[in-house]
Amino acid sequence: MQERPTVLFIGGHDPSGGAGIQADIETAQALGCRAASLVTCLTTQDSRNVRALHPQPAEDLLSQLDCLLADIRPQAIKIGLLGSAQVIPSLAERLATPGVPLVLDPVLAASGGQRLADERLVTAIRRHLLPLTTLLTPNRAEARRLAMTAEPDTAARELRGLGAGAVLLTGADEARGDQVINRLFHETGEQDFNWPRLPHSYHGSGCTLAAACACGLARCGDLVSVTEQAQAWTWQALAHAEHPGHGQWLPRHLAETEP
Amino acid sequence: MQERPTVLFIGGHDPSGGAGIQADIETAQALGCRAASLVTCLTTQDSRNVRALHPQPAEDLLSQLDCLLADIRPQAIKIGLLGSAQVIPSLAERLATPGVPLVLDPVLAASGGQRLADERLVTAIRRHLLPLTTLLTPNRAEARRLAMTAEPDTAARELRGLGAGAVLLTGADEARGDQVINRLFHETGEQDFNWPRLPHSYHGSGCTLAAACACGLARCGDLVSVTEQAQAWTWQALAHAEHPGHGQWLPRHLAETEP
Repeated sequence: MQERPTVLFIGGHDPSGGAGIQADIETAQALGCRAASLVTCLTTQDSRNVRALHPQPAEDLLSQLDCLLADIRPQAIKIGLLGSAQVIPSLAERLATPGVPLVLDPVLAASGGQRLADERLVTAIRRHLLPLTTLLTPNRAEARRLAMTAEPDTAARELRGLGAGAVLLTGADEARGDQVINRLFHETGEQDFNWPRLPHSYHGSGCTLAAACACGLARCGDLVSVTEQAQAWTWQALAHAEHPGHGQWLPRHLAETEP
Repeated sequence: MQERPTVLFIGGHDPSGGAGIQADIETAQALGCRAASLVTCLTTQDSRNVRALHPQPAEDLLSQLDCLLADIRPQAIKIGLLGSAQVIPSLAERLATPGVPLVLDPVLAASGGQRLADERLVTAIRRHLLPLTTLLTPNRAEARRLAMTAEPDTAARELRGLGAGAVLLTGADEARGDQVINRLFHETGEQDFNWPRLPHSYHGSGCTLAAACACGLARCGDLVSVTEQAQAWTWQALAHAEHPGHGQWLPRHLAETEP
């Protein structure tokens, strides 16, 4: 049996399991990758919204990262929720590894509406993480806030100018009608992807998409194919979503497994 | 498509991904259950050993648990690494739900040797958690320490006397020869399970076994079949284990998935 590539996921933990590192781990497992993970931030959260953040001390996170990287080399890295700005410069120093693609999902607000990043954190992402980023996956609200620009397409182009290799701008947060349009801004052009709009509100769709992109890059796929396949796969996970609680629907990352 | 049962996993987080809640989440996904999880304790850890524990404040864990249980009702619960004694009485109060089976994997030491529980924690497990436990899954060293009894079989019987409904005493930690013997002590008898001994040292085998038992109980399986199937499944995950680092081998919970 073939050894799987390892993807390192750095992000928050969501007890309900729809989002955060659980979405990452499930995505990796479903897509034939091995997950390693670091928790930046625990959260008090249910399927409706995030109630509280419990950011972890920067020195704890960095000691976990150093210990892990001395033992296991990942083939791709994904960063999600950071929870505090303090750790970002040291984290960026350690992750500036040539040849290891980095997917950054700039989680600035929960899909339930709760704000998850202050201005210091936004500034630290711009300054320290965008220049290392192979693929940035903001929704429209996140692109605007990160670029400080009102028009989402202009914002995405500016984020490339700040160092992000490519930007996959997702449209579900502001979709109208029965289509969701995602747009990829990359080195050689811009490309639209149209997806049928799904009936519910989902918890962890952005985490799932970014994780699937990181898995594709860990397998050395080319950027356009990787982002297209990751979107198709995420749509499937959302189409099979479950509703175990009282709020949003939770993606089902491995629809086909039944004992 | 059928809605999956939810299993709530309460335990530690292992960045290397072999053990802790990642093993739980991967096991649940592979066995057709939905995971929810609470992190008691982050760890600085690689595939060799646990270097440091970062236990979370009891009030944070309890607020996460209360928020989650108000939204999603699990069909089974598994507890692994606790990290500190302080949270145990309040945790036990909240988990004393009739009809929800509880699997307790008393993680007292890492497989790399690091001690993970002090005497206060052992006492709190005995007093508050054993009476709620449907199935306890200690290895021989853990059974001895938890029962304060030198002979493992006697220890397992004493742990049933302290309230554990059944005890699956695992033998891999002290196996000799080419067989591992696990013994189930339950209401109507005792039963041995013999498994071929595998060639390596593994990181997260105990977490995986206990998680698979919790998934079986969430599906309302009977105890003897559930423990037998969980052992067979764990053996498969270990037989397909990978060696991405420099220490122990990491179980592969979904061997068959290749994109």
